[in-house]
Amino acid sequence: MTTVIIEASEGDEPIMRVLAISGSLRAASTNSALLRAAAVAAPEDVTVTIFAGSDGRGVGSLPPFNPDEDGDPALPAVKDFRDALTAADAVVIACPEYAHGVPGALKNALDWVVASGEMVDKPVALLHASSRSTYAREALTEILTVISARLIEEASVTVPLTGKTLDEAEVILERPESLAVLRSALAAIEAVVAVSTTQ
Amino acid sequence: MTTVIIEASEGDEPIMRVLAISGSLRAASTNSALLRAAAVAAPEDVTVTIFAGSDGRGVGSLPPFNPDEDGDPALPAVKDFRDALTAADAVVIACPEYAHGVPGALKNALDWVVASGEMVDKPVALLHASSRSTYAREALTEILTVISARLIEEASVTVPLTGKTLDEAEVILERPESLAVLRSALAAIEAVVAVSTTQ
Repeated sequence: MTTVIIEASEGDEPIMRVLAISGSLRAASTNSALLRAAAVAAPEDVTVTIFAGSDGRGVGSLPPFNPDEDGDPALPAVKDFRDALTAADAVVIACPEYAHGVPGALKNALDWVVASGEMVDKPVALLHASSRSTYAREALTEILTVISARLIEEASVTVPLTGKTLDEAEVILERPESLAVLRSALAAIEAVVAVSTTQ
Repeated sequence: MTTVIIEASEGDEPIMRVLAISGSLRAASTNSALLRAAAVAAPEDVTVTIFAGSDGRGVGSLPPFNPDEDGDPALPAVKDFRDALTAADAVVIACPEYAHGVPGALKNALDWVVASGEMVDKPVALLHASSRSTYAREALTEILTVISARLIEEASVTVPLTGKTLDEAEVILERPESLAVLRSALAAIEAVVAVSTTQ
């Protein structure tokens, strides 16, 4: 998994830092491509970092959640994930649907932050590469709500990309409507974060 | 995680082999205790094996599901899980609810058998150690249904054990009503398996 960071002009502090989390570990994942596209499409004052995890496998870098192992200090991979969440003003999640559910690896990552609370009040948008992932979307919405994340409805969009492998360049350059959807989602996140930070 | 095998009288072939899968990795998990209790409560002609996984961590032994790594031969931990399912006449799952969802580690294990099909037509019962796990139960029912498992409604029971650590001996010896619930669940599974194998 590649970490894509689009910085604002050098030396400037970006206004908003977004952590992008893919629920798929596939190299050719359309959900991961969607997040890379969001990184490229982001406006200048927004930094989008794709969560790579301690070993580059994203959410797959987290060990299976075991409350017995949730000690102080936290396991390194768990600490990485929690620190990445803490440092982010907002989170964008893109995930496939497996067997009418959330990918286990993604849910497992979230299991590690239920008690520690890094998702509390965190603005979160759900991006989807398939309009058919309705079960995963619904389940993820329920999970994020109960851990007190702040789901941004107007930033949770579907950019259908199923059926072939696309990289972010194709997504953005060949489909202006996809770019527009992504940009409006990012603008909606930015609006929520701006209100949060000025309150 | 301990593997508990209650064999029928020596030399006899047990009539029914049940694989018991815990959704919790905690040493003091009430769901795991419930499965050990089921093993002890099982009638003579039933073998209940608790899934230990290739490294003793149960569902936590499976790597994060990645379709890119789902090749031939399968990864050893994945093969172990699939072989254990294939060898079982029925499956019993007991899992906690994390953040209104199925534990990620359990869902991850199931993600590995969606395409390979070991759960197709497999009789499955859901045991619960808490009557409050309604979201996890509903989500798991949806997941198992879509992968064509055969959910045994009358064997899916709740044996409330929350609030303290119990081992199987306490469960069985101190609560005859819990034992009765477990035995009726096992009898219901056995009835379904008996009908399947004589068809």
